[in-house]
Amino acid sequence: MSAFSAVDVITAKRDGGALSDDAITWMLDAYMKGDVADEQMSSLLMAIFFNGLDPRELLTWTDRMIASGERLDLKGLSRPTVDKHSTGGVGDKISLILAPLVASCGAAVPQLSGRGLGHTGGTLDKLESIPGWRAFLTNDEIREQLESVGAVICAAGQGLAPVDRRLYALRDVTGTVESIPLISSSIMSKKIAEGTNALVLDVKVGRGAFIKTLERARQLAQTMVSLGTEHDVATVAQLTMMNQPLGRAVGNALEVTESVDVLRGGGPRDVRDLTIGLARVMLDLVGIDVDPESKLDDGSAYALYRTMIEAQGGDPDATLAVGVCKDVFLSPSDGILQSVDALSVGVAAWRLGAGRARKEDPVSAGAGVLCLAREGDFVEAGQPLFELFADDEEHLARGRDAIAGAVSLGEEPVPHEPLLLETISK
Amino acid sequence: MSAFSAVDVITAKRDGGALSDDAITWMLDAYMKGDVADEQMSSLLMAIFFNGLDPRELLTWTDRMIASGERLDLKGLSRPTVDKHSTGGVGDKISLILAPLVASCGAAVPQLSGRGLGHTGGTLDKLESIPGWRAFLTNDEIREQLESVGAVICAAGQGLAPVDRRLYALRDVTGTVESIPLISSSIMSKKIAEGTNALVLDVKVGRGAFIKTLERARQLAQTMVSLGTEHDVATVAQLTMMNQPLGRAVGNALEVTESVDVLRGGGPRDVRDLTIGLARVMLDLVGIDVDPESKLDDGSAYALYRTMIEAQGGDPDATLAVGVCKDVFLSPSDGILQSVDALSVGVAAWRLGAGRARKEDPVSAGAGVLCLAREGDFVEAGQPLFELFADDEEHLARGRDAIAGAVSLGEEPVPHEPLLLETISK
Repeated sequence: MSAFSAVDVITAKRDGGALSDDAITWMLDAYMKGDVADEQMSSLLMAIFFNGLDPRELLTWTDRMIASGERLDLKGLSRPTVDKHSTGGVGDKISLILAPLVASCGAAVPQLSGRGLGHTGGTLDKLESIPGWRAFLTNDEIREQLESVGAVICAAGQGLAPVDRRLYALRDVTGTVESIPLISSSIMSKKIAEGTNALVLDVKVGRGAFIKTLERARQLAQTMVSLGTEHDVATVAQLTMMNQPLGRAVGNALEVTESVDVLRGGGPRDVRDLTIGLARVMLDLVGIDVDPESKLDDGSAYALYRTMIEAQGGDPDATLAVGVCKDVFLSPSDGILQSVDALSVGVAAWRLGAGRARKEDPVSAGAGVLCLAREGDFVEAGQPLFELFADDEEHLARGRDAIAGAVSLGEEPVPHEPLLLETISK
Repeated sequence: MSAFSAVDVITAKRDGGALSDDAITWMLDAYMKGDVADEQMSSLLMAIFFNGLDPRELLTWTDRMIASGERLDLKGLSRPTVDKHSTGGVGDKISLILAPLVASCGAAVPQLSGRGLGHTGGTLDKLESIPGWRAFLTNDEIREQLESVGAVICAAGQGLAPVDRRLYALRDVTGTVESIPLISSSIMSKKIAEGTNALVLDVKVGRGAFIKTLERARQLAQTMVSLGTEHDVATVAQLTMMNQPLGRAVGNALEVTESVDVLRGGGPRDVRDLTIGLARVMLDLVGIDVDPESKLDDGSAYALYRTMIEAQGGDPDATLAVGVCKDVFLSPSDGILQSVDALSVGVAAWRLGAGRARKEDPVSAGAGVLCLAREGDFVEAGQPLFELFADDEEHLARGRDAIAGAVSLGEEPVPHEPLLLETISK
């Protein structure tokens, strides 16, 4: 007979108690073995949503998630490893630029990524719009590419934190996603298992982010920084604004094209600035004293990007598909753009076909939105504000409906919002 | 495509919102159809544990549970119907006496009952210790017996509030039992579907009850009285003390024997008094002006009990089995009994074999505890305090371990606690 019962663990947490290390270990192990049912775990997750996990409980919970699978061993590499994780925003294509940029400065970047769900895109979905590019690498291939190229963006293997894979799928259907301890342990268990020496977290705050308030973003950032530090991963978090989309492009191929623009020294200012800022923090964490801006401007970052794409079978010179059905959304009147709502733009891109509602759905490479104006811009009646792309008229119509509410016009000047709000380190 | 999604309903309740009538109806119907999974329902139940249901939500929730199954039609009977429900206590054999007593006064008592789980016994388990007695009757048999005999105690049919059956089983394993809206809707949906005109609720409070505080008992009682009233069931609740066991006998056959003692004019005072008190409220609710005490004393209630048992195949004269393995627990010292803990006695009876841990477990008819002294009694060292009965030595040993902590002795006189704490009506 077991020393624990699922009901006792659930009711203890429900009633505000702290769970012992043994109880947490038992519960997660029993869940993986099938001795604790999904309906019991979801009820515990909801109790955690309400009553949280204290730092000791969270540490044990995260440790058990890591211990449930394999850990990638990156110790043999000749360069220090540093990774970045973003909590997800609209138009957030930073990883595509950042990984080769930081590698071109001398670090190794093991960017193990996921796919998009809902209104934010996934890094793998974006890169898969490049013909021939493959997301799946073996652990040996990851290590080899990190040594030879310095950067790899690929799918996180099934072997890393398998408890998280099951818990994440369960949280997604049971209304238990938005919990700081559950979000933190999910992100950090995978990043710690990935074996990186250092990690920068880009915690998005605002209308287009999962976290809407600075207060909660700060709490999430602090929790993740603590977890990283406890596991000897040098971790820093930046809180960055996500009210309007990042850059102009939202959609898979559209974002790859914009990333290449930035890698070639052009592209939207906000994407370039945020990437350089994150690169500085990453390089600082691993003690590399190189100015990343110079590597963007002298073409080294772009060259490394091409090598990285080619190493995974992709053709960096391929012309990327863009949706054949197009439309333009025009400004209804003269005025100053008071807001370009990232959530609405994200939903529009999703409806156009760029995102998926269920994890088994395919995504369109060519669908998406180009944002032609930014908050604070003066626009005239009839001026194009968005360009929409889809593979068929049905998706185009759905996207058109969703984009209508994305802008508001007014007469007041709009103060410039800084993108970087706060940096949180140990 | 459905107008609702399970995740939206769960997150709305999780975030403190009120669910629309349509959302509640959709959720319960989709659960019964299998479109909402157990893990989604358990997560909603946990959110309800934390954020409750407002009166309108609770009414809709209960209505939908009733509408999920059949309703017993008792309108054709020549006498008014009145039932009692107890939230469950240790030694609570009141139903066995009350149903024939109230019927002997001229009402019809449709006592559709359940089995015991955990430390409190079930009425059906008790009656099944009578050889030949059967718990399962068809709806027609129930109506016929109510007309001809006036009282029926039998298993609640599978057709009444089937959503409740699934929700109850789910709550049992997911730590979501102790929620006032969920308890109320579970009890009241079955009682309303049963078709009774009137209902008395015996809400137990104290160490041996599921509800430990007067405040929560009052809240539960008020919620159930409102639900009954809204459905035209005249409903009154009594809050009664459950710190020490009710009567002397705890266990299936032992409780039947004690019930017969009370029906024959004897038996423990507290059992007799509580039964008469509840009978008065029941008769009052259906406008019958007969003194139940006279029906106990003149043998009419006992005669009706015999007829009721015989109508369901039982032999009221059969000698009931008592566990062959016996032991006596002696007072360790002189003193005044400060407490006889109902929970400990209930757990001891359960361990002796009288109760079940899982609903498919069998129960022993002859196992149980006789409590030989009550709170406030002066006892001497070596005086027997409990008699234990089991079918084998293994169970006897388990019960002996559990009973040890049931009493505490002291020197202070113990004030007499009234059994009836409060009456709550509309």
